[in-house]
Amino acid sequence: MKSVVIGASGYTGAELLRILAFHPDIEVVSAGASGNAGQLICDLYPSLLPHYEGAVFSEVDSLVNDLANQIQKVDIAFLALPHGISQNIVPRIYDNVGLIVDLSADFRLTDPNDYKVWYNAEHAAPDFLEKAVYGLPELTRNELKGARLVASAGCYVTCSTLPLAPLLAGGIIEPHSIIIDAASGASGAGRSVKANYLFGEVGENFSAYGLKNHRHTPEIEQNLKAQVLFTPHLLPTSRGILATTYSRPTARFQDWLNSAADREKHGSEFVLSALADAYEQEPFVFVTKSPPSIKSTLGSNNAMVWGTYDDRTNTIITVSALDNLVKGASGQAIQCANIALGLPESAGLGSLGLYP
Amino acid sequence: MKSVVIGASGYTGAELLRILAFHPDIEVVSAGASGNAGQLICDLYPSLLPHYEGAVFSEVDSLVNDLANQIQKVDIAFLALPHGISQNIVPRIYDNVGLIVDLSADFRLTDPNDYKVWYNAEHAAPDFLEKAVYGLPELTRNELKGARLVASAGCYVTCSTLPLAPLLAGGIIEPHSIIIDAASGASGAGRSVKANYLFGEVGENFSAYGLKNHRHTPEIEQNLKAQVLFTPHLLPTSRGILATTYSRPTARFQDWLNSAADREKHGSEFVLSALADAYEQEPFVFVTKSPPSIKSTLGSNNAMVWGTYDDRTNTIITVSALDNLVKGASGQAIQCANIALGLPESAGLGSLGLYP
Amino acid sequence: MKSVVIGASGYTGAELLRILAFHPDIEVVSAGASGNAGQLICDLYPSLLPHYEGAVFSEVDSLVNDLANQIQKVDIAFLALPHGISQNIVPRIYDNVGLIVDLSADFRLTDPNDYKVWYNAEHAAPDFLEKAVYGLPELTRNELKGARLVASAGCYVTCSTLPLAPLLAGGIIEPHSIIIDAASGASGAGRSVKANYLFGEVGENFSAYGLKNHRHTPEIEQNLKAQVLFTPHLLPTSRGILATTYSRPTARFQDWLNSAADREKHGSEFVLSALADAYEQEPFVFVTKSPPSIKSTLGSNNAMVWGTYDDRTNTIITVSALDNLVKGASGQAIQCANIALGLPESAGLGSLGLYP
Amino acid sequence: MKSVVIGASGYTGAELLRILAFHPDIEVVSAGASGNAGQLICDLYPSLLPHYEGAVFSEVDSLVNDLANQIQKVDIAFLALPHGISQNIVPRIYDNVGLIVDLSADFRLTDPNDYKVWYNAEHAAPDFLEKAVYGLPELTRNELKGARLVASAGCYVTCSTLPLAPLLAGGIIEPHSIIIDAASGASGAGRSVKANYLFGEVGENFSAYGLKNHRHTPEIEQNLKAQVLFTPHLLPTSRGILATTYSRPTARFQDWLNSAADREKHGSEFVLSALADAYEQEPFVFVTKSPPSIKSTLGSNNAMVWGTYDDRTNTIITVSALDNLVKGASGQAIQCANIALGLPESAGLGSLGLYP
Repeated sequence: MKSVVIGASGYTGAELLRILAFHPDIEVVSAGASGNAGQLICDLYPSLLPHYEGAVFSEVDSLVNDLANQIQKVDIAFLALPHGISQNIVPRIYDNVGLIVDLSADFRLTDPNDYKVWYNAEHAAPDFLEKAVYGLPELTRNELKGARLVASAGCYVTCSTLPLAPLLAGGIIEPHSIIIDAASGASGAGRSVKANYLFGEVGENFSAYGLKNHRHTPEIEQNLKAQVLFTPHLLPTSRGILATTYSRPTARFQDWLNSAADREKHGSEFVLSALADAYEQEPFVFVTKSPPSIKSTLGSNNAMVWGTYDDRTNTIITVSALDNLVKGASGQAIQCANIALGLPESAGLGSLGLYP
Repeated sequence: MKSVVIGASGYTGAELLRILAFHPDIEVVSAGASGNAGQLICDLYPSLLPHYEGAVFSEVDSLVNDLANQIQKVDIAFLALPHGISQNIVPRIYDNVGLIVDLSADFRLTDPNDYKVWYNAEHAAPDFLEKAVYGLPELTRNELKGARLVASAGCYVTCSTLPLAPLLAGGIIEPHSIIIDAASGASGAGRSVKANYLFGEVGENFSAYGLKNHRHTPEIEQNLKAQVLFTPHLLPTSRGILATTYSRPTARFQDWLNSAADREKHGSEFVLSALADAYEQEPFVFVTKSPPSIKSTLGSNNAMVWGTYDDRTNTIITVSALDNLVKGASGQAIQCANIALGLPESAGLGSLGLYP
Repeated sequence: MKSVVIGASGYTGAELLRILAFHPDIEVVSAGASGNAGQLICDLYPSLLPHYEGAVFSEVDSLVNDLANQIQKVDIAFLALPHGISQNIVPRIYDNVGLIVDLSADFRLTDPNDYKVWYNAEHAAPDFLEKAVYGLPELTRNELKGARLVASAGCYVTCSTLPLAPLLAGGIIEPHSIIIDAASGASGAGRSVKANYLFGEVGENFSAYGLKNHRHTPEIEQNLKAQVLFTPHLLPTSRGILATTYSRPTARFQDWLNSAADREKHGSEFVLSALADAYEQEPFVFVTKSPPSIKSTLGSNNAMVWGTYDDRTNTIITVSALDNLVKGASGQAIQCANIALGLPESAGLGSLGLYP
Repeated sequence: MKSVVIGASGYTGAELLRILAFHPDIEVVSAGASGNAGQLICDLYPSLLPHYEGAVFSEVDSLVNDLANQIQKVDIAFLALPHGISQNIVPRIYDNVGLIVDLSADFRLTDPNDYKVWYNAEHAAPDFLEKAVYGLPELTRNELKGARLVASAGCYVTCSTLPLAPLLAGGIIEPHSIIIDAASGASGAGRSVKANYLFGEVGENFSAYGLKNHRHTPEIEQNLKAQVLFTPHLLPTSRGILATTYSRPTARFQDWLNSAADREKHGSEFVLSALADAYEQEPFVFVTKSPPSIKSTLGSNNAMVWGTYDDRTNTIITVSALDNLVKGASGQAIQCANIALGLPESAGLGSLGLYP
């Protein structure tokens, strides 16, 4: 199948090129980039040289025009653009492209009012919001089959939703007072050329940012149907997201525990079982016996989740990890595309984390 | 004044040597190290060469004997040993040394039962627990004056106590349901030669550890007279601790807010004022306008604290940062010694964080 | 085909497990580790959990016995052991295993005297030295076909040999006065639990080591039939090797230049052409237009080489990069196995570097 | 004494502010920054908050005007600007400021033609080149006394000159065929907001740059009166420079060796002695027994040098290390100012490297 990557010079775009280079069924026929059109792909990403030698970034505008005018025909368009841009492109190419997978936030919030509140702008294509299927296979696999527009889930959102969704679904934790304390490697900010992402600022550093109103909050809340307080931090790593969450157990969970000899042990096993049951059949989500680390997932589409119960403070804690550019972005987008197109779900995504 | 550093080959010991090299009033006359006795100090810490050229680590046992038998007379003994060892040394040298500053946890918990519960052992010198003054100048400055045995506060503990103590004292947050989510650089584990502290394991990594029962928990609770859930994480940095805390506002705090036009703004200012009032006169604690970062404090004795109120989830959040080896250990020990001995509190501690 | 990995708990062993998990033709049936026998593989390498869930390390001794006694029959044995051990294992299993690929230095030096000089020990299996084929496909591809014992080339050696071999073969540089200044990530030391490989020592650091007599020197000289001065450095990265080399041009090269209008431009193009000609058909070696970086190769079996001529000082400079654990060790071992066994050379090795 | 820092928002400017905060004799009365004028100093450098709370960057133009028009009178002006700018400022303020210390390259090359060749521009103030004293105290201490314009030496230059100058002066190495292979942390590029200095590009990376024509080459050659080939590399650290050099021994040196039983041992001791003799009295240069590391100097004004002789390849190797922002820039500038003004040379510069 033929695909284009639009927004290919950013980190998630380049990551799509990296993974698709070895996808058995999908090839990239054009890589569009606005600022870098005309440049060799391997000038920006020397790692891509072995597969993309001589290939240059095309212009986004002319690429979109060619798709809109059926001059270029492809099966899939991956949009790896900053938020606010896809919503202007999707309506133009929707009829001519078999599948659009959008990696931005543009089509993730189903209620256009939410978009307005959190992004301070009117949505440019509200009609397409209901056409879009939210792209988090562990939650929406069935809806993804045959989808034509996928809003691939965000990185922090995937890492936070995976451990919490089964606990909420199982009536184990309360749908409020949930605290998500998370940390991401510097690539989470994309290839933003700003002083605060320089090596000299990020190295040997750690800090919290976007407190109280980070834009991934409404997306997490939409997935969980719960209220969360989300605090991201910036890690001195290139990749990786770790989320540590704290929740209140439900009265029902506490009742279960009352029968147990060792409440803490019993409660912790209960939490781990709920996660294990939820992800037993999942190809990319693994329940660990101890808190996972981001390095376990580095460069792979694997996510790892773990949970426990603290009886002393009556709190349920989870820890989860993934690579923000793979399971948190481009790997997940390809996983969604595989499902939507009826390909094997793991096609092109087989790899284990680099460790060390 | 003459001092000895016992346990000088560990990271906090070496940090004492580093800082004391330029202390105007305290000199180091002997640096004891058990495993490395006889080695050149600069073989382990080449950075110390300019001041300690030719100096070798002495034997801990013979150094303690010499102090116990008054063969060696010093004004100050800094003990920078793993927990469990100081409690055997202090009784032997207490009468012969003007001031002992212990950097381990041995004399921090005032109730010997607490020690037993969290360290699984009987305390070897329970009589000395009440002689010990807890060494966190911002909390215990007056008691430190003239003290003869100081139990210098722990790194995570200092970073967690500084933002929370004024909020509890001011009746702003409830003394329970407090969550402390913190992260430390690898030096927090000391110079432990274990596989999980290798560069290949810590680099490009981030993980939670010691969940639910980290030994700094009872020390934080003792300081705050509150219940906390404390979760530490391991950062891919050499130094630095950041603590992000989440607390429930008191009913009183919410009453105050009810009169405000903009609850969130008003509440956040209230929190910041409480911190600013508490630390206005402090030489080493600074209230910032935005969440601080660990790099702001790198290599210095400075701590930075910040706080805010989230009205949506009714939560008070604080973020605080310090260098775990300086304000979290050796710098604080020297600050305590300065106070105990009547020296200028900042003597030898004047420096700003390395940035970048 | 069935394979065993002996020495699977070290970094190169774990890397073999990582790559072989997705090899289309080779599966791992046993992973032997001396110190960690009986432990879950994923306890040491949580990244391997998705493929090796529940698998434990077997005992090296009993595994070797089973191979020696034909209780266990496999097509391939990968030996990923510290030097000095393989030479005792190979004679015992050689007749019963179709192909042995040894990743240690034991069978790399063809002259047993060289081994004695550089390793201070008699070789335990000198008879097998001539049976061994040196495993650097770009140099020894033909000999590797059908080989039964492969001595897979070292990491620094591969990175140094690739740029220099074509320049020597082409009569461009002199076979003496060659300086190789190289740097490796911390995984190059293996999973050695020593204080100098702790994060606190390697992070924010850079230093030279093994000056004048590093054991990769004779191996490089054997490949190049030239004298080299090799200086390795330790990088604060998990992976990656970069080699910068300096050589004297031959009189012949200088003669060629004399005819050129722009000697420097002409000379530089000449050098690049020699490299391009040598590696045009190679699946894993790429000639770049500007000096390559280690990150371009991270996690992949790709090597990148570049060269130039400095007329001012009459020096030929090359820069080359690879991932020490992949093209410098485990990836190369698998590439050699593929060739030896008649499998597609790139089987299981398709990937691009992680960037960022 | 009163000083101004012009160009205070860059890394060397901020480092001047950091060090001068605790200088006993020099205070900063104004910190000029073109792009960031009006901003709080601690907004860019939160580490400076404890000393510079409330202080804002002033405008460079008006600050220079005020100095030129004697509205503002200061004893010292530190210029920490990109190259090309100081040469326009110095002539305007020279008569009104007791001492100007320029950290840029503008006044380092004594021959205006060299400036033209390496910087592709006419020098704007050639008359001031001969007024300028080159600021490398170990070479030019006497000239610095009473100097009114100091051209403080470059970072790579200092690190390369320190080990090589005594070997050339002692007739030990030839003044040609010298190779300097060096590496610097990312702060060496200043606070340049370019994609290639983002954390995602520099982290887990290492690469060579500026090959053959880096602008520090003529400055090194001017110091050494020798021809060098200089190759810098970019390290994934915030700070630090390590230089590894390779030189040809003179015939005289080889003659000395011929009388020795163990040529290599004798030659190596000879090299180390030459360095030790040269730096015996120096307050900031230390000769080590084994190759130094950059971390040994982190945050301090100390430089470490080491050398050895390799008999096998007849090469003299040196390794030297320093912090590029301190001894390589701002610390050195202050050391020069101390000497020029007759203050104690080490005033304000007492500190040891942060390790770990």
